Amino acid sequence: MQNPELQIRRAAVVGGTHGNELIGAYLVKKFAAAPQLVQRSSFETTVLLANPLAFAAGQRYVERDLNRCFSLDNLQDAEAVSYEDSQAKAIYQQLGSGAQKADFIVDLHSTTSNMGLTIILTNRHPFNLHLAAYLSAIHPAVQIYSWMDSQKAFLRSMSELGCAVEVGPIAQGVLDAALFEQTQALVYSILDYLEAQNCRQTLPVPDSLTLYECTAILDYPKTEQGELAAMIHPALQSRDYQPLQAGDPLFLTFDGITIPYAGETLYPVFINEAAYYEKGIALCLTRRQQVSLLG
Amino acid sequence: MQNPELQIRRAAVVGGTHGNELIGAYLVKKFAAAPQLVQRSSFETTVLLANPLAFAAGQRYVERDLNRCFSLDNLQDAEAVSYEDSQAKAIYQQLGSGAQKADFIVDLHSTTSNMGLTIILTNRHPFNLHLAAYLSAIHPAVQIYSWMDSQKAFLRSMSELGCAVEVGPIAQGVLDAALFEQTQALVYSILDYLEAQNCRQTLPVPDSLTLYECTAILDYPKTEQGELAAMIHPALQSRDYQPLQAGDPLFLTFDGITIPYAGETLYPVFINEAAYYEKGIALCLTRRQQVSLLG
Repeated sequence: MQNPELQIRRAAVVGGTHGNELIGAYLVKKFAAAPQLVQRSSFETTVLLANPLAFAAGQRYVERDLNRCFSLDNLQDAEAVSYEDSQAKAIYQQLGSGAQKADFIVDLHSTTSNMGLTIILTNRHPFNLHLAAYLSAIHPAVQIYSWMDSQKAFLRSMSELGCAVEVGPIAQGVLDAALFEQTQALVYSILDYLEAQNCRQTLPVPDSLTLYECTAILDYPKTEQGELAAMIHPALQSRDYQPLQAGDPLFLTFDGITIPYAGETLYPVFINEAAYYEKGIALCLTRRQQVSLLG
Repeated sequence: MQNPELQIRRAAVVGGTHGNELIGAYLVKKFAAAPQLVQRSSFETTVLLANPLAFAAGQRYVERDLNRCFSLDNLQDAEAVSYEDSQAKAIYQQLGSGAQKADFIVDLHSTTSNMGLTIILTNRHPFNLHLAAYLSAIHPAVQIYSWMDSQKAFLRSMSELGCAVEVGPIAQGVLDAALFEQTQALVYSILDYLEAQNCRQTLPVPDSLTLYECTAILDYPKTEQGELAAMIHPALQSRDYQPLQAGDPLFLTFDGITIPYAGETLYPVFINEAAYYEKGIALCLTRRQQVSLLG
């Protein structure tokens, strides 16, 4: 317990922010039907299927990516009238402001990349760091990825406390029972941690954590017409969180030519994520850091 | 060479029939830009990106599944006016009828299921059986799946000769360089086989082939409201082409209850295919057969 004053009054468990990431969507549907699963004695838990129209359509979004709609500028923009803009404003009313504001938000995502069980932090609040360290201690497969959200455009950025859970690899539009149960276990661990914090119970938190901090983004090679010119190299595919060194194969052109990586040794994540083709992201390069939680 | 009279005059290599199956789409784009790769001396090869609008949108289809639009009834239905209906009629004009009719069609697909390299036959024409046997001999990872298309609604059913190539597992909307190159090698082997047939060259074809014939389709357990009530069981996930026996785990409910398989021993394929959730298909059960090519 790193902060004796902090008290969580309301937590939100969100899924289906991207409508074709089914694990989160079906988990929150399960929790909505059996709320006792996510209730704890010392705080309230709100469960939200964030993009029901996209979920019904089996798509990431209907008009634009909901998880890029939560900047204050966008929330206050009267001309932002897409379905997702309207949905973001409604969710902000429900969870991001006023008396019902959530003190803690966990947003459940999945990825086609081989990211296992990843906790994504969007700030370095000590509470979030301690929580992530706790989760990595009790679930040894957990990795911690830090992706600063300076514009606070992500849904979970409405609350300073919280994280995203990102599990993979899993195709869009499918369920994977093993990842479903692992994600569920992570949600329960997070809620238990909040409960322990509120009840001033001490949980075993390591003295430090390994954090992968996003430092650069690489796009795919493109033709002059802006079309894809290469794929993730087979030797790099699925090697999220493995070191990428100068000279290692990076891309493979459609004609079979290898394009090597040039740069300092870094750790790629989100390798070959389906939803990031349109964003111009082939992978995110991270720096591996050991962060002390002492003092 | 099992048929001395048969002569292929025109072959078609089709990809992007489903717009989010990127391997086929990018292969035909490559072939369109470098047609010499798919030309052979004894026949013409047409290359087609079948659903360009869906490909541009990153979706399987725009209005309806193009690969269910090719029945004669539908092609002749003046009221069938969706984008895909119109596209099917145009493709039928180009490849399915008249002087330019393709004698052989290979349609390139991919799946989220762990189907490796699969050749899908929709009839038992001896030429197709011999071709499939040849491919399984020179590419040992190849499996042969038979899915009768009595309505001839599939694109490739426009021609009696031909097959689909179905590779996986791969998420929708992504490329996988290893599967891309393996699919490309299969296309080249198919074209080489057609060339050998035309030139009366004898290629090594085994005396028999192992065929997995679709015999039943299983849907997911559903609630009374028609919603998903369970997932593919983790013990079954990715076990395409492995025997499924009575008592084996089949589904897992969201509450963690295992639903076992009850029935004769069969071989499932298309386990947990993303595009089949909306079709009510959790998996296809096949009977494994040894088919003799002698006599």
